[in-house]
Amino acid sequence: MNIEERLLNGDKRACARLITMLENNDEEAIEIIKKLYKHTGGAYVIGITGPPGSGKSTLTDKLTKELRKKGKKVGIIAIDPTSPFSGGAILGDRIRMNDLALDDGVFMRSMGTRGSLGGMSKATWGAAKVLDIYGVDYIFIETVGVGQSEVDIVKTADTVLMVMVPNLGDDIQAIKAGIMEIADVFAINKADLSGADKTQIEIEMNLDLNESKDYRPPVVKVSASKNENIDKLIEKLMAHRNYLEETEELIERRKRNTKLEIVKLVEEELMGLIMDKALEENLLDNLTQEIILKGLDPYTAKDKILEIIK
Amino acid sequence: MNIEERLLNGDKRACARLITMLENNDEEAIEIIKKLYKHTGGAYVIGITGPPGSGKSTLTDKLTKELRKKGKKVGIIAIDPTSPFSGGAILGDRIRMNDLALDDGVFMRSMGTRGSLGGMSKATWGAAKVLDIYGVDYIFIETVGVGQSEVDIVKTADTVLMVMVPNLGDDIQAIKAGIMEIADVFAINKADLSGADKTQIEIEMNLDLNESKDYRPPVVKVSASKNENIDKLIEKLMAHRNYLEETEELIERRKRNTKLEIVKLVEEELMGLIMDKALEENLLDNLTQEIILKGLDPYTAKDKILEIIK
Repeated sequence: MNIEERLLNGDKRACARLITMLENNDEEAIEIIKKLYKHTGGAYVIGITGPPGSGKSTLTDKLTKELRKKGKKVGIIAIDPTSPFSGGAILGDRIRMNDLALDDGVFMRSMGTRGSLGGMSKATWGAAKVLDIYGVDYIFIETVGVGQSEVDIVKTADTVLMVMVPNLGDDIQAIKAGIMEIADVFAINKADLSGADKTQIEIEMNLDLNESKDYRPPVVKVSASKNENIDKLIEKLMAHRNYLEETEELIERRKRNTKLEIVKLVEEELMGLIMDKALEENLLDNLTQEIILKGLDPYTAKDKILEIIK
Repeated sequence: MNIEERLLNGDKRACARLITMLENNDEEAIEIIKKLYKHTGGAYVIGITGPPGSGKSTLTDKLTKELRKKGKKVGIIAIDPTSPFSGGAILGDRIRMNDLALDDGVFMRSMGTRGSLGGMSKATWGAAKVLDIYGVDYIFIETVGVGQSEVDIVKTADTVLMVMVPNLGDDIQAIKAGIMEIADVFAINKADLSGADKTQIEIEMNLDLNESKDYRPPVVKVSASKNENIDKLIEKLMAHRNYLEETEELIERRKRNTKLEIVKLVEEELMGLIMDKALEENLLDNLTQEIILKGLDPYTAKDKILEIIK
């Protein structure tokens, strides 16, 4: 069997292989996804985000176990902050080497955020499609909730779970405010800490400001490390799924996400093409030299590069 | 006097006006920077980054006061996480309304991170140029150290100050590792907390791995809120500046940063052009509809958009 057939047959190694190919920006993997694209759409994607230190990884693991009890197959894509120089993921799979790794119904992968010229969203979305074709019922995409690129990725899930934690400082408040609007369900993790009620009130007050919608995101207090209320959280995630399916908002959301994906794909490819050309002709080097000598400014340099493409 | 002359004469209101124009993506502001570009290069740019809750804002304020004692003019650009929907900065200037606002030798501005199609780097770099022409001696660009776009911005400073804080969790460790390599100077803030020595050892151990370089980033323990060791931190920042100037690495670094800036400018403009075209012809809507019906995949859709441009 070739790799396509193996993926369709639920071969875990074929799935792993294809995701690695995507990470390496191997066009063959894209060709395979194109061919098998009609087999996508079965998996339900849940984005999990929250500030650093909120315990997202542990919570994702516990949610996965809860879904496994119900016989569901689960894929996990954890997006790691990447070293801007080495390009590799930092946490890697090492901290996630737990009992889930031994479960055949769970596929788990850490992906680095890659270099500044993009590729993160392409690889992440590609990996989600591979998992979808492979046949998982649920995909968790987990990322630190700061940074535009990271927010863009998690925003394209079917349901967005925002993990909060009591007693965080001012910066965290700002981050929370920045992405609160994309959350469909809130979890307050480490809910045994004293500030949990205060955090809940803050979130509810924020939600009161958006009363216009007919769906109001629920707020669930959990403790991932003590495995408390995970079943209740799953219930709320499923309730959001039901809401989307019944109101046909799911299709609207997937349309919006597809648009964002196309735009990002165009952006990433175009930049690659331009930079190849600019580097090939030493154009970038020459323009930079002129700017340093104050014979040119960066905006005019930009126009010159754009002219060449046209 | 027109706004150009006023800016060259150090008129604070002209400076503020131009930065607002940049935030609104007003081409006239760009034209003015182009004309005055030869007046840039005098300001020294220090990027300040660190995890949420590390006290970057307070530290920036204290560093500014220290430089003011030496008679230096200072500009501060604080990049705020932006609400992805409303597009506005969250913290805004309200939390920075302190005595610095009354000091005529200090210019301070909070800028939002804007929408996902970019513009953040363009506006930030533009603002830095305006401050440079306006005549400040130092520019602080302050941003939360997570997210590729945010890292890209802070990376283009002349000197990068990384603010750490004791006793942070696993996620924070990862973030730290992800941007440790871009730091020229480390500050451990809240150094009166018990874990400060441990944090210092961790950083030093990490630095030991990069022994090849002839410059080793110093690690300074400070307390911004108690105003302790701020003078020592300034000393280390100046030592890095001297190192760059003496070794002519400053010019190399500015070349690298200029290249990154040109690339970003090209990227932002090109995406704007493409999206205008794709939206105008309903192209994006039609392609999305086909993808939802599984008659097309996002990769082929991307190719179709790219063809139209060519």
